[in-house]
Amino acid sequence: MPAESLSSAGTANARLVYMSDFLELLAADAANSSDFTDRSGISATDRARTVLFECLFNHLADDRVASLFTILGFEHDFTCYAIAGYPARSAARSRVDIEKIVADFGGTCLTAERPITGLTGADNGTGRTAVVALIRPVGAATPEIICNTIAPAFDADRPIALGPQRTGAEGAMRSVQATLYCLKAAPALAATAQSLPRPLRTDDALPERALIGDEDARDELIRVVYGSLTAAGPDDPTLLTVSTFLKYGGSLETCAKELNVHPNTIRYRLKRAAESTGWDATDPREAYVLITAIALGRMATAQ
Amino acid sequence: MPAESLSSAGTANARLVYMSDFLELLAADAANSSDFTDRSGISATDRARTVLFECLFNHLADDRVASLFTILGFEHDFTCYAIAGYPARSAARSRVDIEKIVADFGGTCLTAERPITGLTGADNGTGRTAVVALIRPVGAATPEIICNTIAPAFDADRPIALGPQRTGAEGAMRSVQATLYCLKAAPALAATAQSLPRPLRTDDALPERALIGDEDARDELIRVVYGSLTAAGPDDPTLLTVSTFLKYGGSLETCAKELNVHPNTIRYRLKRAAESTGWDATDPREAYVLITAIALGRMATAQ
Amino acid sequence: MPAESLSSAGTANARLVYMSDFLELLAADAANSSDFTDRSGISATDRARTVLFECLFNHLADDRVASLFTILGFEHDFTCYAIAGYPARSAARSRVDIEKIVADFGGTCLTAERPITGLTGADNGTGRTAVVALIRPVGAATPEIICNTIAPAFDADRPIALGPQRTGAEGAMRSVQATLYCLKAAPALAATAQSLPRPLRTDDALPERALIGDEDARDELIRVVYGSLTAAGPDDPTLLTVSTFLKYGGSLETCAKELNVHPNTIRYRLKRAAESTGWDATDPREAYVLITAIALGRMATAQ
Amino acid sequence: MPAESLSSAGTANARLVYMSDFLELLAADAANSSDFTDRSGISATDRARTVLFECLFNHLADDRVASLFTILGFEHDFTCYAIAGYPARSAARSRVDIEKIVADFGGTCLTAERPITGLTGADNGTGRTAVVALIRPVGAATPEIICNTIAPAFDADRPIALGPQRTGAEGAMRSVQATLYCLKAAPALAATAQSLPRPLRTDDALPERALIGDEDARDELIRVVYGSLTAAGPDDPTLLTVSTFLKYGGSLETCAKELNVHPNTIRYRLKRAAESTGWDATDPREAYVLITAIALGRMATAQ
Repeated sequence: MPAESLSSAGTANARLVYMSDFLELLAADAANSSDFTDRSGISATDRARTVLFECLFNHLADDRVASLFTILGFEHDFTCYAIAGYPARSAARSRVDIEKIVADFGGTCLTAERPITGLTGADNGTGRTAVVALIRPVGAATPEIICNTIAPAFDADRPIALGPQRTGAEGAMRSVQATLYCLKAAPALAATAQSLPRPLRTDDALPERALIGDEDARDELIRVVYGSLTAAGPDDPTLLTVSTFLKYGGSLETCAKELNVHPNTIRYRLKRAAESTGWDATDPREAYVLITAIALGRMATAQ
Repeated sequence: MPAESLSSAGTANARLVYMSDFLELLAADAANSSDFTDRSGISATDRARTVLFECLFNHLADDRVASLFTILGFEHDFTCYAIAGYPARSAARSRVDIEKIVADFGGTCLTAERPITGLTGADNGTGRTAVVALIRPVGAATPEIICNTIAPAFDADRPIALGPQRTGAEGAMRSVQATLYCLKAAPALAATAQSLPRPLRTDDALPERALIGDEDARDELIRVVYGSLTAAGPDDPTLLTVSTFLKYGGSLETCAKELNVHPNTIRYRLKRAAESTGWDATDPREAYVLITAIALGRMATAQ
Repeated sequence: MPAESLSSAGTANARLVYMSDFLELLAADAANSSDFTDRSGISATDRARTVLFECLFNHLADDRVASLFTILGFEHDFTCYAIAGYPARSAARSRVDIEKIVADFGGTCLTAERPITGLTGADNGTGRTAVVALIRPVGAATPEIICNTIAPAFDADRPIALGPQRTGAEGAMRSVQATLYCLKAAPALAATAQSLPRPLRTDDALPERALIGDEDARDELIRVVYGSLTAAGPDDPTLLTVSTFLKYGGSLETCAKELNVHPNTIRYRLKRAAESTGWDATDPREAYVLITAIALGRMATAQ
Repeated sequence: MPAESLSSAGTANARLVYMSDFLELLAADAANSSDFTDRSGISATDRARTVLFECLFNHLADDRVASLFTILGFEHDFTCYAIAGYPARSAARSRVDIEKIVADFGGTCLTAERPITGLTGADNGTGRTAVVALIRPVGAATPEIICNTIAPAFDADRPIALGPQRTGAEGAMRSVQATLYCLKAAPALAATAQSLPRPLRTDDALPERALIGDEDARDELIRVVYGSLTAAGPDDPTLLTVSTFLKYGGSLETCAKELNVHPNTIRYRLKRAAESTGWDATDPREAYVLITAIALGRMATAQ
């Protein structure tokens, strides 16, 4: 519903959407951003990069954004992935360090700063500004290697998020969004995960991302996780067994009684489901992922 | 240039002036003694009611909507609650029945129809059109009594949702929205709830509503549920105990070991927490509510 | 490309898109339309209908438009079709006549006026204002029966267009657009069609609609017409035979020589293709449709 | 409210002020003696050229784009033409080769890369990236000579497009657009043209360009082709004869019968029309151009 989507995407989004071409985008930012009140030392490249990230942060990835990428040397059909974290010291220093390391590997990257706001969207001013890097893959250096190498530029006591590798402006936007949602979700993970992975991959926080409105996470929970439980068809007992087991809080006996089979049958089915779907209902964290996926899947397929 | 045409049409001032025009037209039509002047055969009152509900369904509850309520006889500061369900036979018949029953109690109500779409927003055309009634409380008849009395107008095999009692246009909108989100969430409840309450109260589906983007549900999970766990202050072990117990999948022993206390201490603390907060971490459904509330609470208060 | 689509959709579209809710749409129209400078005798219904058609004419069919339909008594999931033509006498008289006839059949319809502009988008002021009716199907009365019955309300010397029957706001918009493009395309049909069908169905003017930018016509030429030529797979000679025959201006002999087969083989293949695809390359009008479809199909599938 | 924020940022005045900012930054960067100050390793001149081409590709040719041309040494009122094709080996190599050849002739040129997407706008990832060169005419070297000389830089199995010579930013944009539309249209030409001209001139693909939305092609078909058929005034039989001949699929006899004249008269008129207008209705390819032009012309002049 437009009213809702507008208000949730925010005024910045509405403003950006409404600019009719990318040159207007470049101008509009200057007209509104206080970053540019002192224009000494600002290059055209700096401004283009600032505007580009403003678009990506606001879920924009249209042709104008593709133009901005081209201007910044990311030609059509480029591949990239995002890494986001909190700066070790200053954001400016982190960005310089990251750009230098990636350049040493022979690659290119774009960096920006982004405050990580609370759930209400309000910036609580507690200095939670993240640094986001958009990196083009370089030779044999995997995202993991790059991520480990630039890790010292980030605060060691806070999470780092590594986004998936994707193609084009739309893919870049989704990778950036996934890392931002991950940083936002990280404090919640302690509720069910026994330790916080580092780097945090975007799949590590699916239920939390869904809770705060990340559509990509919702889609993945429905398509991938719920889909894996129903892949073997309506006669397969996987979904029923897993959901009954979870509904009774992980009690094999109650689940067996409810389904009128022997507990060993439940045990066997859960083991087989864990092998085939990759999600183990007897692990508390994965149980939470499964409960969330089943809830979303049932709502999505309700008749 | 579009921006220019907008600036002439879209200022807040202009909006109010012209908006009242449309509402004045509606009011004038509705006040007209011959209520069926329209070529389409729809009375002016019906039209105003349809406009009102379209507003409520689209999350609108500003001064314009308050005007619509006034046109329909719901004066300033009225109190009301919503009931929604699927019609027993036709939607038209359900609406007539409900309006008659409420009138028999001496009350007034407004009814409308609303398709309940899937998560994707796409209507799958399976006839899931709900009937929504907005009811002003009448004498000694509680919402529960009214709800039970009008229940036969609804499909007995499908959920009925009873919204909270609220005040004014904003309150009416929230009560209506809560019942709609509940109907949407109902198919998911089977994942963790052992039976579907009838009527479904809006608190019965908090985690599912939060998952599909209901801000009110999110707020309530943070404020009420998470708030109850932290109410006794930072030194109180309730939040830590409950969250550790949940993180280890409901194992008293692992939780006790992790917190370095005796399992009986955990058992005692959980019992006391269930009494003081109203949420029992040893019940699978309430455990799911608590996990969701803790996840949201941690994200909302992260620094 | 946004700049292009914005400029082609026009300022009205940008203005309408930008209104955040349907009540603002209703107000915005009043702020801009000179229709309402004299407000005496204008009902809320009239205004809602005017705004609704303004949206449909500007390719808008979002949730706000669905709300406008609901207000006007076209509930969710309604089915409808559009009929458009030039008024016999005045547009106002035609609209009244059409509405009365449809009501006599027991149905409901919404009508509006729309100038049919030249290719440049400029209204040349030659009185080419069409009347568009959006009709909900009624009992046993087919669209053809309704169309014939209301035909006297239209100018007998000018075309009438009958749109396809569709569902919901999006479907209504497409049916309306198809009839408008048809009226615009009608003068061109004389170039290749030997007589102008009455009513003109939207399939009768596919190449002309594609030429003036109708995306639906382009899609249909590629998917349906080009698709029928390639349906039998890459080894089937249908596409090659038809396209070679057309390339040589309908000469059996040259085509046969080019493909190194006997002319009778070409004749047989064209006959079989006409039967299986429904398009006969030896008919000049259908040859033009096929040439256009092959051109579009080749561009769409180019590698 | 979005409208409010827009009104502060989006007036035409503000746009020009801040736009010149961005262009001034670009100009200052480009004028800088050390041309490689940028962390990304892209020179300021390269950046300005990339920005310029992104404008041209997006149909922008206003004062802002004229400023970009000035930054790159194409002063006010310059003349140029575009050549586009697919690279023989790498795009980078093709660009270097083309720039060198033009420089050897004593001229200047700007080059860029542009993916040629399918009709849907989706890139099918098959490496269809074209190289576009914008060339200022040099001494006695005609565009044809230049085109032939740089042809080896392009893939010999794929089309090359040569745009018309034009003046200023607007002219440059149109020449570039015409070559891009030509490359997009090339796969369709095989439907009616017996061989693909090399280089493909922008007039060679008028109907196909019109079909995919090229306004310049539409204008030319109406103004030049349709105009040539009607140039001799309303009493001249050229348009009627040609259109009747085409409507009956190129049958002299049927056309003669329809117009009630001797077939030799038709033959004579078509011959004379081919001489005076340059378009021969008895040639299948030109017949298709004429049909399209007549369709567009009739729609453009309809009353």
